[in-house]
Amino acid sequence: MGERIKSEIAVVLVSGGMDSCVTAAIAHREYEMAFLHINYGQRTEHRELQAFNAIADYYNVTRRLVVNLHHLRQIGGSSLTDTSLGIPGANLHRKEIPSSYVPFRNANILSIAVSWGEVIRARKIFIGAVEEDSSGYPDCRKEFYDAFNHAIKLGTKPDADIIIETPIIRLHKSEIIKKGIELKAPFHLTWSCYQREDLACGVCDSCALRLRGFYIAGKEDPIPYLKKLVYL
Amino acid sequence: MGERIKSEIAVVLVSGGMDSCVTAAIAHREYEMAFLHINYGQRTEHRELQAFNAIADYYNVTRRLVVNLHHLRQIGGSSLTDTSLGIPGANLHRKEIPSSYVPFRNANILSIAVSWGEVIRARKIFIGAVEEDSSGYPDCRKEFYDAFNHAIKLGTKPDADIIIETPIIRLHKSEIIKKGIELKAPFHLTWSCYQREDLACGVCDSCALRLRGFYIAGKEDPIPYLKKLVYL
Repeated sequence: MGERIKSEIAVVLVSGGMDSCVTAAIAHREYEMAFLHINYGQRTEHRELQAFNAIADYYNVTRRLVVNLHHLRQIGGSSLTDTSLGIPGANLHRKEIPSSYVPFRNANILSIAVSWGEVIRARKIFIGAVEEDSSGYPDCRKEFYDAFNHAIKLGTKPDADIIIETPIIRLHKSEIIKKGIELKAPFHLTWSCYQREDLACGVCDSCALRLRGFYIAGKEDPIPYLKKLVYL
Repeated sequence: MGERIKSEIAVVLVSGGMDSCVTAAIAHREYEMAFLHINYGQRTEHRELQAFNAIADYYNVTRRLVVNLHHLRQIGGSSLTDTSLGIPGANLHRKEIPSSYVPFRNANILSIAVSWGEVIRARKIFIGAVEEDSSGYPDCRKEFYDAFNHAIKLGTKPDADIIIETPIIRLHKSEIIKKGIELKAPFHLTWSCYQREDLACGVCDSCALRLRGFYIAGKEDPIPYLKKLVYL
């Protein structure tokens, strides 16, 4: 496509999963992107970093920052980082907060994004949080981001003027997929599985949500799976 | 003193400086304390950690967490972490934000405290932020903590109920010193200098504020200085 000059910088939080990939595709339309990736000691850390770099290459993003937050493993309290706990099988109908919850994780991530954003004079922080599909994580809700934006306004220099954008927060997974296809988001480069790094397991919450989303959208998921089930 | 049973846990952010030491002395009266220390790549990291452990020993705190946030050095933008910038000499009358500002640093620190606090079921996070003496850092203001408390409420589990306490935020340095002496805070174990690790330099902002505070309080600062000047 013809690239117009983009005068404003946006930090985009790119985990390597499909939601952050579509978020990047949205940010790409208007902003010069800077990509931030967090290693927080999760099982699939290496595979996610590989996906991050592949997506950054796809969009020719040169400003990349990779930060280790391995203290989230030290702190524990979550099956994503504590290998002594099993990953729960998919259960897309439960109401309680799952054990894969890392307490206040997104606040840790956003704080880094804002620190970096202030230094590189970014105007926006894009994060691919999704309220409905977030299995009840409290820090994935719109209200949390509104409150955090207020804290940013009061906690940064007056001329910093940084705002968090959550462009897909109210979308269903299938809508995110359709949006991504419309914007030519590179789904084939993404990784969502919480469990494995070679083939996606197809049974963890993250795989289940993704597979169901592609099924509802009527599209084929381009990444390889060990088991390709659909939980409806 | 006779120790009564303290049923609630408070995470106390202890840098090793005098403000956090007095904050710990305040928290100690009512809470079982858990101490959190952050290494963020500052010049005097080693000396501050030593002070942290000495203060923790003094209060018999067994729950200690030390977290490296060296990415704040990676992110840069501050003379505290970027060794290519000089530390500014003391100027206690300037209005602009000094170059020793690490953007949004306290939000990064508080986010970790909340993550840990949720896991160990703490009810409070104590931080020794001081508005007046903070050289204009935006994330040392009461309004910032109020906003952050609201983000915590929305971003943690409903039963977490964690609140940040800033007991010395409105005090002058000399009042903090008097409060600390009243509570038998171990000032002799603290370290405040931004510049040196053997003797406090006496000329950086942090030393100047501390020396002036002791002078106004009419007390002797028990730590050793290279130059013991008072800027009024």
